[in-house]
Order: sequence, then C-alpha cells, then structure tokens
Amino acid sequence: MTLTHLSEWTSFGGTLSVYEHESVITRTPMTFAVYTPKGEGPFPVLWYLSGLTCTWANVMEKAGLQRMAAELGLMIIAPDTSPRGDEVPNDTSYDLGQGAGFYLSATQAPWAEHYHMDRYITEELTQIIADNFQSDMSRQGITGHSMGGHGAITLHLKNPEQFKSCSAFSPITSPSRVPWGQKAFTAYLGKDETIWKAYDASALVKSGHTSSAHILIDTGTADNFREEQLKPELFVQACEASEQKLTSRLQDGYDHSYYFVASFIEDHLRWHAEALG
Amino acid sequence: MTLTHLSEWTSFGGTLSVYEHESVITRTPMTFAVYTPKGEGPFPVLWYLSGLTCTWANVMEKAGLQRMAAELGLMIIAPDTSPRGDEVPNDTSYDLGQGAGFYLSATQAPWAEHYHMDRYITEELTQIIADNFQSDMSRQGITGHSMGGHGAITLHLKNPEQFKSCSAFSPITSPSRVPWGQKAFTAYLGKDETIWKAYDASALVKSGHTSSAHILIDTGTADNFREEQLKPELFVQACEASEQKLTSRLQDGYDHSYYFVASFIEDHLRWHAEALG
Repeated sequence: MTLTHLSEWTSFGGTLSVYEHESVITRTPMTFAVYTPKGEGPFPVLWYLSGLTCTWANVMEKAGLQRMAAELGLMIIAPDTSPRGDEVPNDTSYDLGQGAGFYLSATQAPWAEHYHMDRYITEELTQIIADNFQSDMSRQGITGHSMGGHGAITLHLKNPEQFKSCSAFSPITSPSRVPWGQKAFTAYLGKDETIWKAYDASALVKSGHTSSAHILIDTGTADNFREEQLKPELFVQACEASEQKLTSRLQDGYDHSYYFVASFIEDHLRWHAEALG
Repeated sequence: MTLTHLSEWTSFGGTLSVYEHESVITRTPMTFAVYTPKGEGPFPVLWYLSGLTCTWANVMEKAGLQRMAAELGLMIIAPDTSPRGDEVPNDTSYDLGQGAGFYLSATQAPWAEHYHMDRYITEELTQIIADNFQSDMSRQGITGHSMGGHGAITLHLKNPEQFKSCSAFSPITSPSRVPWGQKAFTAYLGKDETIWKAYDASALVKSGHTSSAHILIDTGTADNFREEQLKPELFVQACEASEQKLTSRLQDGYDHSYYFVASFIEDHLRWHAEALG
C-alpha cells in the first residue's frame, strides 16, 4: 500500500497532512487528512466523520479543532464521505452517491461495488493509521457531524472496543425513520427495513448494542433539519429505555452550520480527551 | 441608506450577520459582515481586511476569530475586498479588479468610477457601523491578511485617530517595490510612482506618517509569497529608521493560508483588546 502525500500545513504548532491511497475496500483512490499535534507520540486518536457533500477539508478548515487537538495532544483523522471518481456510481442529488456514503456497506447495484465506507474506516484506514502515524490505537474516539454524526454513533455502538469514546454534532439519530436515511438505505441496502436496523443508532441501542461510554450529542435549536431529519429525541428515548449513558443537549439559536460545530468543538475534544485518559 | 440583512448565524454565543447596501462611494451594492459578541454593548470594534480574491466569508469561516472576539467582547467588521458586479470593471487575473481593490482610491480609467475601498471603509462603512450597531467608535482597531495587511497598516498610519491599534498577518509591506503592488498601482493610480507612496506602508512610515501605536506583524517562514511579495524586512527597516513601534515576528513553518491566520488570531485579538482598553 502506497500513501501519496498530497499536501501539508503547519497549524497550531502541529501538522495537517492530506494523503491519497488506493483502497482495496472501496476499489477507488481515497483521500484523508491527519492532524498530528506537536510533540512526542503516540497520540490518542479522534476520528471525525463529516456530513453530506463534505470531504476531509470542511472540518479542518472551518471547525477550528486543531487548536484544542494541539492543546490536548489528540491526533485527528478526517476521512472522506464516500468513494469518488468518474467510474464510481453517483446521483444528481446531494444526499445520495458521491459525498453521501452514509458509513455503511451497500448491497444493492450499482452501489455495492464501491460503497463500503464503514469497513473502509474500521478496517483499512484504521490499519493505515496504525502502521504509518504516531497513533495510540488503544485510545481511539469518534465524532462527526450530521450524516457523520450518524456514522460516529453507529460505528461506536458496533465497535466499542475500537472507538472507546463517542460524540456527535447534529447527528441523524434514526435514519430508518427520516427522509435522508430512508432514501439512502433503500438505494444502498434495498427495501427490507430489517436490514436497515444495523445502521440505525436508535434501533441499535434498542436491540442491545449499547456501550459503556457516555455519549455526548449537541444539536442546535435553529437547525432546519432537526425536526425532520435529525430527531435527537428518538435517540434520547432509545438510550433511556436501554440504559445507554447519553448527554443530549439542545443549543439555543444554533443552526446546522460549521459556525455551530466550531462553537462547541472544544467541549467535544475535552470530552474525548477525558474519556480516553 | 437601507441595510439589507442577508444572513445570520449564532456563533460562540454571539451573532454573525451579513448585510448588503447601496454604496455611495463605490456606486455598487456592497456586502459586509459583523460579528457581535453576546452581552451589552457598546463594544470596541476590530476591522479585518481580507486578501486577494476574498470576501467577508474567509475570515469568518476559517480564522476561528469569533471565539476570542466573544471572550474579549470585541465587535468584528469584515468588509469585502472590492466593489463587484457585472457593471464593474474587472480583469481576468486574480490580483487586479474584483477581489483585488488594494484599499485605495483609483484615479485611472476604467477603475476610478468604482474602486475607492479606502474611503468606502473609513467614511461610508464607518458611519454605517456607528449608526446601526452597538459599537464604541472611540475604540477601533484594524488588522488584515496579505493585501488586507497592507490595507490595515496603511489605513492605520493615515487614520491613527480612528484606528488606534494595528496588526497584520503576512502583509504586503511595501507594494511599490513588489510585483503585486506594482501591477495594481500602475493600473489604479497610473505610472507616477510618487503617488504610490500614499499607499505604501514602508514609504508612509519613512515620510513621517508614524503612529503612537505598537504594530504587531506575523509572517510565516514557509510563506511562498514572503520573499517576493511581502518583504516584512522592508517595513522593519522603515519602522526602525522612523522610531515606529513594531513587533514583526517570523513564525516557523507557517505558510500564507488561513491555517496560519487561525493559529495566531488569538494573539492578535488579545493585542488589540489590550491596546483598546
């Protein structure tokens, strides 16, 4: 496996680097970013999964998270949100296809050949990070925004030994029951809704996929997607019923943008740093 | 004068708002952003002038300055970098015309009708801020990046009673002697280089346009424009010869990007807050 180093910036005393590699799992080139704080590793690792239409760049350019990552000594990994390329199936809408991988393994044509973002992250990219960076893989946490918040919670619940801490900004908490998720799951997974439950944070918790972590969620009260697509209350109900530790906060006046993420990223990084020790 | 409110976000407990208005000075619609911290005003005002190709959005999206503005209680004003529109003269290159106003008053055709960004800021937009926002106009500072660093220093030196504190990131410190400035000044001001001196920070200081402020400048050692376009050493020499107080720092490994600006924005905001009292 060859890692191609695409770009590098100094940021808050550490280094932000972007790499490309040929992925065995997605069968495409894949791009990801790593922020490494200054100093001697190995560093605990925080994964940041982005939302619809995003790449590694959104969080690194707009969330300001390098500041606290530098202060707390966290390595940040930002994968892309889907496989991409002229040969990769796509859709004209923003919420399906390239930029909208939904952190699942597609089973339906034409998506099944390339769309396997969950295994790409938990298997292939995890191994790449372990092999090539000053990472302490015994201390990994995961967070994300919107579709990436869905990804963070579901990957945590299904892999609590890998991702020991979990938080999310404006997550889609029950994709099976909202338009974004229903559209994507029908396309990627087919019409059998029982299969969807493996990728639905609220359904996972209800079916016993709880973790010992204390999950943190922030959602803005002025988020236009909150009532129709995010529904944080569904995850609150599921966690209460299953005794999953959860702090779900509504932040007054904030919307779905990175201005919101930036405002609370310090809280989330401190939450992970404390949980990871 | 009518202010049209284009957009608004909650950010770090305060409010980021974007407005449009018909400018008497540029004879175009102009757009600007205001970040107002939470709490009771009036707030000291920090102007942020952006670089080539930028709008109000670059600093508000990428510098993370709302965090410290909220903490220190500073109002931030981010103007656009030029007049814009189909009727406004332009150039196909990125460093002349729209997005490249250079904070001066053009005297040459076809630019002279619209390109007056210095007076737009110090006269028209200043009055708009005074009339419409919870601003303490007796406490104003100015900063900027690259072309906007040139703007910040020159507007400060020529209006020290208005802009009582001054700093800059990667400023063009002597545009008369570098390709970006020579191209722009020839187009906007004509070939008579004596006229250029009114818009050249180093020439201004040399000719006695000093201030009682202590100016702060940061420039990255890995900035690709440093040696050819920025030349911080020219401003250091001018300030030493004229006893202008200056701290000019070279930051190891940083380039010209907003990753650099974000890394040192806290220092600059604290510098202004202290100077403005």
